[in-house]
Amino acid sequence: MIKVGIVGGTGYTGVELLRLLAAHPHVTLNSITSRKEDGMPVAEMFPSLRGHVSLAFSAPEKARLDQCDVVFFATPHGVAMSQARELLAAGVKVIDLAADFRIQDTAVFEQWYGMPHSCPDILAEAVYGLPELNRDAIRKARVIGLPGCYPTSMQLGFKPLLSQGKPLVNESALIADCKSGVSGAGRKAEVHALLAEASDNFKAYGVPGHRHLPETVQGLQAIAGRSVGLTFVPHLVPMIRGIHSTLYATLLPEARGIDVQSLYEQHYADDPFVDVLPAGSHPETRSVRASNMLRIALHRPGGGDLLVILVVEDNLVKGAAGQGVQCMNLMFGLEETIGLRQVPILP
Amino acid sequence: MIKVGIVGGTGYTGVELLRLLAAHPHVTLNSITSRKEDGMPVAEMFPSLRGHVSLAFSAPEKARLDQCDVVFFATPHGVAMSQARELLAAGVKVIDLAADFRIQDTAVFEQWYGMPHSCPDILAEAVYGLPELNRDAIRKARVIGLPGCYPTSMQLGFKPLLSQGKPLVNESALIADCKSGVSGAGRKAEVHALLAEASDNFKAYGVPGHRHLPETVQGLQAIAGRSVGLTFVPHLVPMIRGIHSTLYATLLPEARGIDVQSLYEQHYADDPFVDVLPAGSHPETRSVRASNMLRIALHRPGGGDLLVILVVEDNLVKGAAGQGVQCMNLMFGLEETIGLRQVPILP
Amino acid sequence: MIKVGIVGGTGYTGVELLRLLAAHPHVTLNSITSRKEDGMPVAEMFPSLRGHVSLAFSAPEKARLDQCDVVFFATPHGVAMSQARELLAAGVKVIDLAADFRIQDTAVFEQWYGMPHSCPDILAEAVYGLPELNRDAIRKARVIGLPGCYPTSMQLGFKPLLSQGKPLVNESALIADCKSGVSGAGRKAEVHALLAEASDNFKAYGVPGHRHLPETVQGLQAIAGRSVGLTFVPHLVPMIRGIHSTLYATLLPEARGIDVQSLYEQHYADDPFVDVLPAGSHPETRSVRASNMLRIALHRPGGGDLLVILVVEDNLVKGAAGQGVQCMNLMFGLEETIGLRQVPILP
Amino acid sequence: MIKVGIVGGTGYTGVELLRLLAAHPHVTLNSITSRKEDGMPVAEMFPSLRGHVSLAFSAPEKARLDQCDVVFFATPHGVAMSQARELLAAGVKVIDLAADFRIQDTAVFEQWYGMPHSCPDILAEAVYGLPELNRDAIRKARVIGLPGCYPTSMQLGFKPLLSQGKPLVNESALIADCKSGVSGAGRKAEVHALLAEASDNFKAYGVPGHRHLPETVQGLQAIAGRSVGLTFVPHLVPMIRGIHSTLYATLLPEARGIDVQSLYEQHYADDPFVDVLPAGSHPETRSVRASNMLRIALHRPGGGDLLVILVVEDNLVKGAAGQGVQCMNLMFGLEETIGLRQVPILP
Repeated sequence: MIKVGIVGGTGYTGVELLRLLAAHPHVTLNSITSRKEDGMPVAEMFPSLRGHVSLAFSAPEKARLDQCDVVFFATPHGVAMSQARELLAAGVKVIDLAADFRIQDTAVFEQWYGMPHSCPDILAEAVYGLPELNRDAIRKARVIGLPGCYPTSMQLGFKPLLSQGKPLVNESALIADCKSGVSGAGRKAEVHALLAEASDNFKAYGVPGHRHLPETVQGLQAIAGRSVGLTFVPHLVPMIRGIHSTLYATLLPEARGIDVQSLYEQHYADDPFVDVLPAGSHPETRSVRASNMLRIALHRPGGGDLLVILVVEDNLVKGAAGQGVQCMNLMFGLEETIGLRQVPILP
Repeated sequence: MIKVGIVGGTGYTGVELLRLLAAHPHVTLNSITSRKEDGMPVAEMFPSLRGHVSLAFSAPEKARLDQCDVVFFATPHGVAMSQARELLAAGVKVIDLAADFRIQDTAVFEQWYGMPHSCPDILAEAVYGLPELNRDAIRKARVIGLPGCYPTSMQLGFKPLLSQGKPLVNESALIADCKSGVSGAGRKAEVHALLAEASDNFKAYGVPGHRHLPETVQGLQAIAGRSVGLTFVPHLVPMIRGIHSTLYATLLPEARGIDVQSLYEQHYADDPFVDVLPAGSHPETRSVRASNMLRIALHRPGGGDLLVILVVEDNLVKGAAGQGVQCMNLMFGLEETIGLRQVPILP
Repeated sequence: MIKVGIVGGTGYTGVELLRLLAAHPHVTLNSITSRKEDGMPVAEMFPSLRGHVSLAFSAPEKARLDQCDVVFFATPHGVAMSQARELLAAGVKVIDLAADFRIQDTAVFEQWYGMPHSCPDILAEAVYGLPELNRDAIRKARVIGLPGCYPTSMQLGFKPLLSQGKPLVNESALIADCKSGVSGAGRKAEVHALLAEASDNFKAYGVPGHRHLPETVQGLQAIAGRSVGLTFVPHLVPMIRGIHSTLYATLLPEARGIDVQSLYEQHYADDPFVDVLPAGSHPETRSVRASNMLRIALHRPGGGDLLVILVVEDNLVKGAAGQGVQCMNLMFGLEETIGLRQVPILP
Repeated sequence: MIKVGIVGGTGYTGVELLRLLAAHPHVTLNSITSRKEDGMPVAEMFPSLRGHVSLAFSAPEKARLDQCDVVFFATPHGVAMSQARELLAAGVKVIDLAADFRIQDTAVFEQWYGMPHSCPDILAEAVYGLPELNRDAIRKARVIGLPGCYPTSMQLGFKPLLSQGKPLVNESALIADCKSGVSGAGRKAEVHALLAEASDNFKAYGVPGHRHLPETVQGLQAIAGRSVGLTFVPHLVPMIRGIHSTLYATLLPEARGIDVQSLYEQHYADDPFVDVLPAGSHPETRSVRASNMLRIALHRPGGGDLLVILVVEDNLVKGAAGQGVQCMNLMFGLEETIGLRQVPILP
């Protein structure tokens, strides 16, 4: 059994981790830290876990995280990097759901996250936790920086196009028009996320710049091995879970003849959590609700040069906690899909 | 023109007041105070008001409220009573949307609101701002304590039954099972009111005791002229606006023969904002959305002794801002319905 | 392995059955019938099932239901009773999610469902599929009439009070103020269930009479062994799943001293799917979303005689498909909880 | 007073027309037709109109539409063109909210709407009812084809860019990523529009081709006086009202220096229902809820060549009924804003 610790289990990615890990056949939940909630049973804060999780939150100093096999950080940015060195020294693997180990260029990290990076050496060895990109490296990793929710959908949506030897699309002018449910903003008390503000409403936000942009560009460039230009426009959808990314890429004249549908199907044939839908499909976010699946559909309206790629995922599962469990499975030599075969909830 | 000031215009009742007053043909908006937002144009915080409200928030000391004809308090409990004396001395009328002037028994007020009452003399002259109860007193009032949103629906729902000479129902065992949209909780950053918490969810709250209980019992007893017993169970509905109160009262044996439908229709024949629906109706909250109407339907399932009274209102209009404007109209000798004839928004 | 057939798998209870049965370790899905969708892969209609259910719908005559061990009817009322005799003759057990085998008095059935009952003899042997009431009888049953969604919550909410030797509450004046998400109305194209009609809206319906009333009264009377009077007021909540029943019962003078909290806790100590919450709790429907749990909390506001019992369940799981699987487990000698231990989805 | 008739008042654009016209100071509602609902008071179907509309639906042959000054068609496609000739002959003006008079090329109309056009001569004189484009022509028109909801937002969003003498952007590769509330689908009983299907869900639809594409391309080409290429991707948002169009256009090298913000502000300076927000804004659909305003914000992320234009409108008002009233005002020599100055409903 893998002994698991969670730092910061009071947010949405935390409770989602608990949901998945509580049912995982190879996991023992060892400890969950929260200084503020020290002593409170987890199932008192989240009654959905009654009968499934008997742990209480404990203050960090009592939590004995050094006795875990792996520790997940479901914390604000900056926490994981402050504790990673000590845990690694104790032989504990680290999976960070925040941004501390996502961006390799520390100057870029500091610019977008407003804090210096405190352990560039650990960052250097950290692996970006997108199994469809880095499966082998994840298997051997000690530290995982899990991708953001939007970046997961954008990178997996563009990947088959960019990973060919030569460019198929105009890689300097990619567009990602993304829509997310409000749980993506976390379980923080903020006016704009109130039901009375966000319900029956739709808006874009962060158009001048969003932290997931540099992360995604880094990932796309790693895939392509070339410079990539991306415009990323996020929107807020009045729903709880789900991301729908509508991606646009213009085929180069020499690539007009390719069969994009079959390119994607072959590319993802061996990835258990990427599902390329039949041609002409319109994936719905609910088709992956509460599951680790990501579904993709491809369109070429009017037979023109503009590809429209539709991608859906559950931002809390494939976009966060589920991807973390998927990485953990790989890191501990388990079958990648263990504990992640839940059927999506519909309706 | 009535010169109007608003103290605390950054919450939902504040912006709703602005919506109604901006279109009121006899009102000039004089000033809106907010220490925190001093200088910010109101329409910058609420873009829905662009082109309708050109005022900026101003710090209280700059607002010259003493030059208004009437000041609305859309503030937390306790603010109105701290400023009422000075305004009254300057000849300014006061309409409080909070609880400062609702409950005549200061001991009860202190028990439920956790603060002493600072001006019992003003409280003593204050009129409870429910026009269907106190129309004449409101016309002459200097200070109005506007009813809470739930109490408006409960009092108007039970009133025809209780206001007869002798009891028609078991007045010691009334039940009010009430359901409210989340805007009733105000525009405060609180976790439980986040869309990701409150959407696709339903729950009761405050069952052991809610501040609107003593206010409602006071009102029902004033109507009946007798002691009244009420159980009040509020619930949170995943919607923005609207209250639906399902009221239960047991007919006394000697009253089994009365025609309740016609009792209600006659009772409210002259009240422009109370609409008794045809027998057998099921009022929907959206049928009064964004309007000052309150609709009532009556049922007697199986022809038994238990009356089921269904009441709907918009908690921000008839339950708050609209009722305030209705009182203002009366206080200034205007037709009661002026500025309040908007057609509800459906769908 | 239990060979399972489903008649009518295109509605919400059908797809929910598929979600649960696809992951059930002792079940093989044998066939799903739909005359209209004959030949269409189930996962094409419900993409959430891609990778989990490979069956296609088949016309009834091709489905070989007689070779199943058990057949679920997720059909309109009247279908199960037309096919039950033949299946039973072939040794197939029958679990009906509609009303055909719920009401023992055929005159009452005909009055509320507008059709004669075609097999009173089978009805006579049918067992009402509420395991917390009829566990032993279900184990031996050949035909199960599964309870309606509302009746499950009302019966389990009142049961501990009514099942004592002598009355504790006024059993002639019970009230059930119930609220349901719209999936309870099924996957039928009806205007009143459109998002643009039902969202941001709340209403009661069926107050003069609802089909779940006679079923519930029958059940409560069976529990009490006495005549019971119930007023049932259903409401529609703008959410997908979930029922919240707010139940009211008046303690008799001689029962004022009982400890209701401990009565309920003891009563349900051995029922794995009924969770009595700590005193003072307010259960939320999302705390059981997509799970088979039903949670109960007890209140006695102001220490008076009126008990307020709050009950939540997922109408599609404990209120339908999950309860069906729970019965199936019992009928085939399995552990009651197998295939039903999913953690609720929150947020 | 303008005598108004409405054909087909039972859908969402119909009830919205009634809401606006009932409060319009220069309008008398003459008749509303519905063969199916003949004799039913309008306010019985839509209780929100109680006290505001006293008309009953009447069968077409009783409605005496020929005695109206103007008739609105809030009907399925094909109805207006079958009745227009007779009304025009009687001197009645016609405003069609469906597509009969939108597309000048009858071959294109027939291709997308699947029916031949029955009166090309009337179509030829019909004016496309977008006042910001065709104000003068509308003033003199006898027949108006009102724009679709999406096309209104796309055309007004792109118009300032395309209406300059020479191209500023790559006009062959415009993209419109549009999101609409579900009331856009009308008040039709369809499974995909049920709350239990569309709530807590997000999807694209009609990506291979949508009827609003040819209409919009026709309009953009009329604006530009040049050929235009557009990719249009509509999405369904789980909300009732509102359209948010996110438009993308690539600046030509020679236009990189233009001040787009000021271009838009000047362009729309005299249009009372188009509001160009300050630079850096993110308009919300609720900021125009239940009002005739359309708001636009402009972005140029990273200072690059890709313009991102955010446009919001209420699909039932500026996208349908409100625009119809705006046209009516112009056609009858009234101030354009009469009856359309409602403050948006927020929250």
